[in-house]
Amino acid sequence: MYSVTKGCPYDEVTSDCRMKTMKLGNVLTLILLLCITLCAQDAAPGPRMYEPAAINSLRELQRAALASNYALKHTAYLTNNIGPRLTGSPQAERAVQYVADEMRKLGLEVRLQELKVPHWVRGKETGELTEFPGMARGSTQKIVLTALGGSVATPESGIDAEVVVVSSIAELESLGRRGVEGKIVLFNSKFNRELAASGFGIQAYGNAVAIRGAGPNAAGRLGAVAALVRSVGGSQNRLAHTGALRYEANTPKIPAAAVSNEDAELMAYLAASGKIRIRLVLTPKTLPDTTTYNVIADLKGKDRPDEVVIVSGHLDSWDLGTGALDDACGVAVSMQVPFLLKQLGLRPKRTIRVIAYMNEENGLVGGTEYAREEAANLSKHFAAIESDLGAGNTVGILFAGKAEIASYLGPISAVLRDQGSPLIQYQPGGVGADIGPLTTQGVPSFAPFFDTTTYFDYHHTSADTFDKIDPRHLARLGSLMAVLAFGLSELEQPLPR
Amino acid sequence: MYSVTKGCPYDEVTSDCRMKTMKLGNVLTLILLLCITLCAQDAAPGPRMYEPAAINSLRELQRAALASNYALKHTAYLTNNIGPRLTGSPQAERAVQYVADEMRKLGLEVRLQELKVPHWVRGKETGELTEFPGMARGSTQKIVLTALGGSVATPESGIDAEVVVVSSIAELESLGRRGVEGKIVLFNSKFNRELAASGFGIQAYGNAVAIRGAGPNAAGRLGAVAALVRSVGGSQNRLAHTGALRYEANTPKIPAAAVSNEDAELMAYLAASGKIRIRLVLTPKTLPDTTTYNVIADLKGKDRPDEVVIVSGHLDSWDLGTGALDDACGVAVSMQVPFLLKQLGLRPKRTIRVIAYMNEENGLVGGTEYAREEAANLSKHFAAIESDLGAGNTVGILFAGKAEIASYLGPISAVLRDQGSPLIQYQPGGVGADIGPLTTQGVPSFAPFFDTTTYFDYHHTSADTFDKIDPRHLARLGSLMAVLAFGLSELEQPLPR
Repeated sequence: MYSVTKGCPYDEVTSDCRMKTMKLGNVLTLILLLCITLCAQDAAPGPRMYEPAAINSLRELQRAALASNYALKHTAYLTNNIGPRLTGSPQAERAVQYVADEMRKLGLEVRLQELKVPHWVRGKETGELTEFPGMARGSTQKIVLTALGGSVATPESGIDAEVVVVSSIAELESLGRRGVEGKIVLFNSKFNRELAASGFGIQAYGNAVAIRGAGPNAAGRLGAVAALVRSVGGSQNRLAHTGALRYEANTPKIPAAAVSNEDAELMAYLAASGKIRIRLVLTPKTLPDTTTYNVIADLKGKDRPDEVVIVSGHLDSWDLGTGALDDACGVAVSMQVPFLLKQLGLRPKRTIRVIAYMNEENGLVGGTEYAREEAANLSKHFAAIESDLGAGNTVGILFAGKAEIASYLGPISAVLRDQGSPLIQYQPGGVGADIGPLTTQGVPSFAPFFDTTTYFDYHHTSADTFDKIDPRHLARLGSLMAVLAFGLSELEQPLPR
Repeated sequence: MYSVTKGCPYDEVTSDCRMKTMKLGNVLTLILLLCITLCAQDAAPGPRMYEPAAINSLRELQRAALASNYALKHTAYLTNNIGPRLTGSPQAERAVQYVADEMRKLGLEVRLQELKVPHWVRGKETGELTEFPGMARGSTQKIVLTALGGSVATPESGIDAEVVVVSSIAELESLGRRGVEGKIVLFNSKFNRELAASGFGIQAYGNAVAIRGAGPNAAGRLGAVAALVRSVGGSQNRLAHTGALRYEANTPKIPAAAVSNEDAELMAYLAASGKIRIRLVLTPKTLPDTTTYNVIADLKGKDRPDEVVIVSGHLDSWDLGTGALDDACGVAVSMQVPFLLKQLGLRPKRTIRVIAYMNEENGLVGGTEYAREEAANLSKHFAAIESDLGAGNTVGILFAGKAEIASYLGPISAVLRDQGSPLIQYQPGGVGADIGPLTTQGVPSFAPFFDTTTYFDYHHTSADTFDKIDPRHLARLGSLMAVLAFGLSELEQPLPR
């Protein structure tokens, strides 16, 4: 345990800064040291930030959120009753209708934004080692793998080829075409589970995921017949971690799959003492582009209805699990914001817009098209919030945009402190994929700041299922989203942008 | 952390009882309270137990074991190079030859005991919900499952039937034939993960596993067309846990599979609000019985070569993972005992017999046939040790037979205390499956006493792979096996029996 004492000059409403002593788990010590200073930057920004009643409303909202099971119930429905929601699937379409219906039930103005999206469908996928040192005659060794989203197929009968194991693209390229042509390349680059457990899961993911995109293209250019990528996640349970692959222009498209961490270890161990071959069968299909929708639901603001605060998650998921952490929970806590406001009879000053984005996972069409359609209207986008990093414990808020935004978050942070989520962390590179196009065009952007110790053990695997949602953590996440959205909508002043 | 202070009157060799203060993790507090008293029972048993030099040899052996990588290397070979070793598979036969060869390399007398064993081979196995509340038109939901060993097959095209969810056989029987006939029964009885984490994994397993055998038979008697059993393990990673099923006489044989914990939760959730159906395809085959072998390797005793101390594990494994925890590591640490004795030039008084049993998982033919063949010679079986509960941290010794055996274990426990494994726990019901037939006929029986916090998360799943072996834990296990085996072989007095 670690104690930090810090004075935090907030605005006049929360002038008694009670953020004196926070005890944080070891896991978060590092994070704390990096970001706690932000809350002391730039004291009160000019005139008052809130009407006095607003802070009371934030606390009322927080209490209601912590006691609500609305988000939990809808996360259960989206995952258990509807199931995996890959773009183009019947489940994704059912989810669109479900969220739209639920928002209409709350009396919101609902609009479906039509999108043209890719439609990729997983097929058979098997791998087995057909040659390796010590192999018993007549046997093989099964390799647990899963096609990367967007991968082309192998022939129905599969590919049987020698495996070359590398740990980086540089190492691959050092082998040259002679060392790679006709072979299957395994990129054995290890996910940094310790970094993820330190709270910097997204950095661990960012570091590791680069090779998933670039690796298969680099292998294809050197004449490889297929590419395998070690799973970009921390699982120690023989789960393969899918994710999107984009083929680069003028590059041979070769089939690509992720192997479980265990199987990457196995292949590297065997290859160290002799030749190994794998028989790989992947039969995914890329169907013609199809039509789907972003669900956009407005709770109209009473004072400035033309100004919008977005609360969002993405409705599509990968197909292996049921997308509970990624990202049914993000959609559900967004849906819960207007539900709670209605329940409490609170009308926001600005419009609160729930968006359930489609196609975050394999195209980002929903987020891209929303920003494109609203291009002329972005100045009226007061703020955008997205929750898309699971439902772990929330320790605070991430934001992107001008650094000075931090000084406007004091009152919100003071309320969130009481639920253990006081941190404010500037992440100028962006805080959510779907709202990214808004962020880059200057819309102040926000996200929950999570403890990601376990998120990347489940993310994009078959184990991303409803049971992974801890109801207590989800309640805190729901509260954070509601307090943040309503807190932004009630600001008396514009945010710097 | 928990501190216990206890005086322990050992024999004259270890008269300075230094077992004063042990700090134990919370996990083991309960175990400690239950078993620590044993070390104080029945002080020194009559005349001296050891020649003075013997204790020095035990400590020398311990040091060598803690520094050795012999067991680790052979665990890696058995799992990575050979792979899954289900009875009757080419890998099982390769493993027999491998262990026999390695024991011959050490100069041991090796014998292969021929066995007639069942030969069951897994086939396709898929499950998908074809009807459930909220189902998107044109979709299904995948259910992760795996056939129970010995299961009969469904038709190639599968079975599509309504699911009835029960939590016990009593609940099933309360439904009567009308409620069960033509349906697929899901036994949704939850593994007690908390009990396993408290150190009593084997009890948690014992409690839960009963329904795996009895459930499908009970369902078959009531006219069910197939049975599903919630996985008998703690996995939270969507892994199905296989295990043996035995059909009872005069009972319809219906196909049976284990579903992952997540999928059992899903089906129970959905069934609570409406009708659910599953399409189940299982195509395992039961082939004619085949021939295999126990590997029996003797390091002859110098004083009493006709008296035998067995050190053992089982060489077969389930087919989903590579059987690292269950039980390549048990075989490898047994193999390591004569290796270390040879390395140190220590000749045991009694014969130390390494046995790599075959067919523990689906028949127990190896253990049964060994005891049958040696029936006339059991009085010369001084002791039997088996390691078959993974490679977690070892906290002491389990034993079965006369309770008075405890008082002969003082010197061994004193040596093991220095590596954190001082506990002595009486488990009169038996301490290992393969040596069970010896135990019931009076052979004093021993096993390592493990922390089983994580064992049942991996046991019988695809994630039982080499990377699950913690080299530090394996080194302590290897030391415990060597110290215990040599300690028993050097005893000056017979054990009570």
